[in-house]
Amino acid sequence: MISILSDFGLEDTYVAAMKAVIYRIAPTEQILDLTHHIPAGDVARGAIELWRVAPVLPTGSVILAVVDPGVGTNRRPIAIQSAEFTCVGPDNGLFTYLIGTEDCEIVELSNPDHLLPVQSATFHGRDIFAPAAAYLVSGRLLSDLGPSLPSFQRLPAPELELAGTHILRGEILYADRFGNLITSIGRLSRAGDIIRLEPWTGNLGAQDLRCPDPVLALPDGVTIPLTNTFGDVGTHSLTAYIGSAGLLEIAVNGGSALECTGLQRGQTVELRTQG
Amino acid sequence: MISILSDFGLEDTYVAAMKAVIYRIAPTEQILDLTHHIPAGDVARGAIELWRVAPVLPTGSVILAVVDPGVGTNRRPIAIQSAEFTCVGPDNGLFTYLIGTEDCEIVELSNPDHLLPVQSATFHGRDIFAPAAAYLVSGRLLSDLGPSLPSFQRLPAPELELAGTHILRGEILYADRFGNLITSIGRLSRAGDIIRLEPWTGNLGAQDLRCPDPVLALPDGVTIPLTNTFGDVGTHSLTAYIGSAGLLEIAVNGGSALECTGLQRGQTVELRTQG
Amino acid sequence: MISILSDFGLEDTYVAAMKAVIYRIAPTEQILDLTHHIPAGDVARGAIELWRVAPVLPTGSVILAVVDPGVGTNRRPIAIQSAEFTCVGPDNGLFTYLIGTEDCEIVELSNPDHLLPVQSATFHGRDIFAPAAAYLVSGRLLSDLGPSLPSFQRLPAPELELAGTHILRGEILYADRFGNLITSIGRLSRAGDIIRLEPWTGNLGAQDLRCPDPVLALPDGVTIPLTNTFGDVGTHSLTAYIGSAGLLEIAVNGGSALECTGLQRGQTVELRTQG
Repeated sequence: MISILSDFGLEDTYVAAMKAVIYRIAPTEQILDLTHHIPAGDVARGAIELWRVAPVLPTGSVILAVVDPGVGTNRRPIAIQSAEFTCVGPDNGLFTYLIGTEDCEIVELSNPDHLLPVQSATFHGRDIFAPAAAYLVSGRLLSDLGPSLPSFQRLPAPELELAGTHILRGEILYADRFGNLITSIGRLSRAGDIIRLEPWTGNLGAQDLRCPDPVLALPDGVTIPLTNTFGDVGTHSLTAYIGSAGLLEIAVNGGSALECTGLQRGQTVELRTQG
Repeated sequence: MISILSDFGLEDTYVAAMKAVIYRIAPTEQILDLTHHIPAGDVARGAIELWRVAPVLPTGSVILAVVDPGVGTNRRPIAIQSAEFTCVGPDNGLFTYLIGTEDCEIVELSNPDHLLPVQSATFHGRDIFAPAAAYLVSGRLLSDLGPSLPSFQRLPAPELELAGTHILRGEILYADRFGNLITSIGRLSRAGDIIRLEPWTGNLGAQDLRCPDPVLALPDGVTIPLTNTFGDVGTHSLTAYIGSAGLLEIAVNGGSALECTGLQRGQTVELRTQG
Repeated sequence: MISILSDFGLEDTYVAAMKAVIYRIAPTEQILDLTHHIPAGDVARGAIELWRVAPVLPTGSVILAVVDPGVGTNRRPIAIQSAEFTCVGPDNGLFTYLIGTEDCEIVELSNPDHLLPVQSATFHGRDIFAPAAAYLVSGRLLSDLGPSLPSFQRLPAPELELAGTHILRGEILYADRFGNLITSIGRLSRAGDIIRLEPWTGNLGAQDLRCPDPVLALPDGVTIPLTNTFGDVGTHSLTAYIGSAGLLEIAVNGGSALECTGLQRGQTVELRTQG
């Protein structure tokens, strides 16, 4: 299976062109659209979405990701093979969270046998990445696609730190389709007064925090009690909970936390005990 | 085949996560996207779209529908099997029009063998409904998924009544992508002066109305003559016709009836003879 | 494979209904969504997108295209078979650029055996075009679907002309999802001081133009130097380059040329030597 993520949107035929190229090389391959609505050029958002969805993707599947504001410049086109996935895309940080610190093999996509005969300067998704993904899913070896590379680009980790003994400080990462604000505070799970933290960006190790009556403090000092789901509070009320990827989220029941709070990406929030 | 309807949109990877879960359980299953752009939490709209598209869906197919503002609260996750379809989703009225008054079997989705091992409180689409749909399409029996239930939730029927001998009164249900206003007046067909009504919400039985020179009266008293299609009137003119699902629709040729009339969901319109 | 293009959007279940009809007739057929976000009724944009994506579509595939503002009126439903593709849709100009001047066979879709039993007046995509495409991909002959026609409708060619010896004059065709403005000047390729033009609309033959230091002149007299890709200029700077379909495009690195220039469809731009 090839899973595709991009910022191409669906208004044009860019996504269709990539899929058509895949079908020409691998006619019966299954294609899964992860999303094509990453905001234009927003590599960080693309990187988070790849990480979010990865746990349910079949092990061994090929991931084709194209959020590529540097297309046609000197950023390298790459493929990465880890124990879990084979990734194809630009070397600009897109795979930061998807590929952890485990061993992996990396190549630069430069073998002309596995590219379209003519490459445009602005659509490597169609001309370089789609054929590479299709050849890989068809059984071609990573090493057939180009020379080995020692490493790939990583984005700086989002803000996530212990502030005092039992305070977790993080930042707003993005708003989803519902206006829910997803934060960098995670991956969390909860058992009574204990909040368990497991690493996801690499900048905080696994640990248990004692945190009775947990609240999320917004930049303006307002604190929101943690619940299990947005439906646990009254209509149009603000709440926070551990979302479906283990990241702390801010939501409004029946509304948009983005509109309600006006919070922007990068603003700091803190998880701590009430009082 | 599994057909999926949701309000998840395509900006995030929520839909992809549901599909990936399905593919893990039923790797070669065909998936049909009905729509993922139901307005957030709009159960009534979701229920109508399921009813609209149902006549062309293959008999026996599985329908996975997730418009679920009560996710994580005490609303039940259910599956319903009728002679025509097997439906999976929240018990909140989504299946009101799809499943008529025929006999059907209903279960609560509570068997842990057919759920993901850990369930989030906010994404039952991925953790409960997608696996249930995938197991059902793979041949698991409805009764394997949980205990039987006597009934499922139904929404109140939209306004649709006879007002006087030959006047059909209904309401605006929603606007489609083109700005066409779809009303509850249906399902209609026309033969000369006779307008034939067939039941769809259950609140009016089949009957023939004599209705020469039919017009649709808007709340402000304006009347629009019935045509066959929007292209039958001049550019930017308002018209009404029996739409592709048998419901009366208001449209503007080359424009948006929603913008042109300012009519809102729930406003009353009447089909009657001119004069 | 059936490739589908439409202006139905994805908010409603119109696209799903077409696909369901196809699956009932051709259950295992592969379907490729080209795009369903052609602006409502914009036949010219649909025609260009079909032409753009065609080079990567498998030869022999069926193309189902429904941008159909005249649905239900006297415009004809047709199928066209060329050496490369079999096209199904309304006879309103949609296939102008996809089908060149080569020999092709054309029929009117009127055989009731290959339509849905009841046809609505407003959704021929579901009732006429989808079944026709599914029967064709299943091996039915074009001549089985209806009587032969001598020709099909073509749109007038976009502006594209030589103005003076070495000036190419064209027009803005549309803006893509990124706000890039796609012009009618093409199909171009570049080798040193030579710009090679190959025909696409039929109104200019293949030729080489000597054009050192090429610039694109906007209607207000501003000139933009040609680069290879938007990433070749500074952030928020305006540039022009030969896009992935060979048409000259205007872009802003990290921004929207549509917003930045305010240029509208149909406005004239000129490719010429600087100075």
